[in-house]
Amino acid sequence: MQLVKTVEWRDATVRILDQRQLPSELVYLECRTVEDVAEAIETLAVRGAPAIGVAAAYGVALAGARAAELPDGDFRTSVAGAIDRLRRTRPTAVNLFWALERMAGVLDRGSEPAGVAAEELLAEAAEILREDQESCTRMGRFGADLIEDGWTVLTHCNAGALATAGSGTALAVVYEAHSRGKRVAVLADETRPLLQGARLTAWELGNAGIPVTVICDNMAAWAMSRRLVDCVLTGADRIAANGDTANKIGTYGLAVMAHYHSIPFFVAAPFSTIDADLGTGALIPIEERSPDEVREIRGQQIAPLGVAVYNPAFDVTPGDLITAIVTDKGVARPPYSRSLRDLAEREDQGAGERAAGREGVV
Amino acid sequence: MQLVKTVEWRDATVRILDQRQLPSELVYLECRTVEDVAEAIETLAVRGAPAIGVAAAYGVALAGARAAELPDGDFRTSVAGAIDRLRRTRPTAVNLFWALERMAGVLDRGSEPAGVAAEELLAEAAEILREDQESCTRMGRFGADLIEDGWTVLTHCNAGALATAGSGTALAVVYEAHSRGKRVAVLADETRPLLQGARLTAWELGNAGIPVTVICDNMAAWAMSRRLVDCVLTGADRIAANGDTANKIGTYGLAVMAHYHSIPFFVAAPFSTIDADLGTGALIPIEERSPDEVREIRGQQIAPLGVAVYNPAFDVTPGDLITAIVTDKGVARPPYSRSLRDLAEREDQGAGERAAGREGVV
Repeated sequence: MQLVKTVEWRDATVRILDQRQLPSELVYLECRTVEDVAEAIETLAVRGAPAIGVAAAYGVALAGARAAELPDGDFRTSVAGAIDRLRRTRPTAVNLFWALERMAGVLDRGSEPAGVAAEELLAEAAEILREDQESCTRMGRFGADLIEDGWTVLTHCNAGALATAGSGTALAVVYEAHSRGKRVAVLADETRPLLQGARLTAWELGNAGIPVTVICDNMAAWAMSRRLVDCVLTGADRIAANGDTANKIGTYGLAVMAHYHSIPFFVAAPFSTIDADLGTGALIPIEERSPDEVREIRGQQIAPLGVAVYNPAFDVTPGDLITAIVTDKGVARPPYSRSLRDLAEREDQGAGERAAGREGVV
Repeated sequence: MQLVKTVEWRDATVRILDQRQLPSELVYLECRTVEDVAEAIETLAVRGAPAIGVAAAYGVALAGARAAELPDGDFRTSVAGAIDRLRRTRPTAVNLFWALERMAGVLDRGSEPAGVAAEELLAEAAEILREDQESCTRMGRFGADLIEDGWTVLTHCNAGALATAGSGTALAVVYEAHSRGKRVAVLADETRPLLQGARLTAWELGNAGIPVTVICDNMAAWAMSRRLVDCVLTGADRIAANGDTANKIGTYGLAVMAHYHSIPFFVAAPFSTIDADLGTGALIPIEERSPDEVREIRGQQIAPLGVAVYNPAFDVTPGDLITAIVTDKGVARPPYSRSLRDLAEREDQGAGERAAGREGVV
């Protein structure tokens, strides 16, 4: 399957697919400054928690490359400033902070001269990208076991290749099930206000030859009651230690509806999405975005000028509404406080044990 | 409160507010033929179950006025053809069929000459409009008792003055609560695909001085979990004998969410919305509309060209998820098979008994 590249390093430039233009146009932004990258994240030219992490890492690498000729002190100040700027782009997805921590760790090594440190930063960003690709593949393999032949999967927003540097989170599962020969179809919520489902998920799945049908967000419950949905499968922007999951606004409502209709509700996310420092989802900061995202659609006014709007970009689904969380280390089941911790501990045991088959459902 | 006129008879023309242009422009269609009226209903220039009934009644009156000079046989054929044409405009709202039945009843009187029959048709349409206005006022009075001071009401689509010839169904309740001095605010779902909430409800409430905040449909569950919603209040397009309620797509999901959050879910509709011939909501025909309503927003493409779409215009909320149904004859409570029948019997007892106070909750 030929997947589109969301973030790429080319000729000392961070090349970012401008997802705001999809599906009408395939346009790349050539980011030459940290500010370019920060704005691409803020304006959702690049979105999806893992892709944001990769873009931010390359943003730091870009700052390093541009400061590589400076004296070491100035180099460090410049890169630290870039990390600071990128940290202030979006508050909810934890992968952003996780990736920036890794980049800060490389900077903290204090390698000299600056040119060497810059190379190290670039290598770390490339490693984050590579790990994300591998992580997608692993999530796909673990998750595909949960999908039965003939199922229709309802998904929300875009948790596909466009949200990562690889094959996606939730959609990696769909792609892998499909490649195993399972017949799988997708119902894609359009996902207001920014329509990532209608614009991105429908486009991406169509390209991949997966049958996809778009619905408005408010049609999901009716589709469930008509037995048009076999499971719900979404990505995640941050997962607390108890499994509470922040994801695109609307996810929580789907979880409530799935619960009412006894339909399994799955989340797929790389382990970097889990914020073990947060005991519960109540501690996850929720970004509220501009009212104009709701008042206007692609520049067209759709509500009275100046009308009050509530526009939270995310919501939090309690762990007890989630049937399973698919990660790149295996599938966690409730209670998540235990199963996510067990998966986390597996981290230190290395690939040897994984190969020995001691991985999978916790 | 100055309310906008949705449907009006003027100079042998049915004047219909073109709600597709709101909130940007206040434009009236001058319908001079039955086909004009039928198209206004089909394209949702006029929408809302009660308003559709009034518009259809005037459509028949228009056919009568245009055929008033014809021989009696031709007059009857022409008017019967108009009724037939209007019957095929939209399948779900029962008020349409109810209003056309009343007009057919007047035609069946067989008054002669045609000019007299035409006058009778016009008088009947005017009576349907007058009754609708009175019905709105009565729903407002009954329903306002359910709304507590300081509440925020979540509503869906537009069940306001724009959906009727009077002050609305659900919003009549809000207007009456407001006029009694209760502090009441409204959270308006934008209501994709045609955005009646963002375009119409927000506009109408803003004009009336009621605090209104617009949200996307997928934000409702999160708003409930954050305790931003005290009750849900919607209109209805058809109500079965057991209380199962067809209304704008998305209503059912709201009922499921309200149930999960223990928030009261109210429906307001005139008694003409109740279809006692249907035992359950499973028998209500659900209109599916064009995929382009979802693929495009106000002419802007928002999904891949030709992508598959599921676009049901309505859903059915089971009576057991509805806390109360506010009608123009009183408030029905579960079990609805009994309470709606009791209210129906009240019909024959006349205004005297109502004045004596033997009305209200059943």
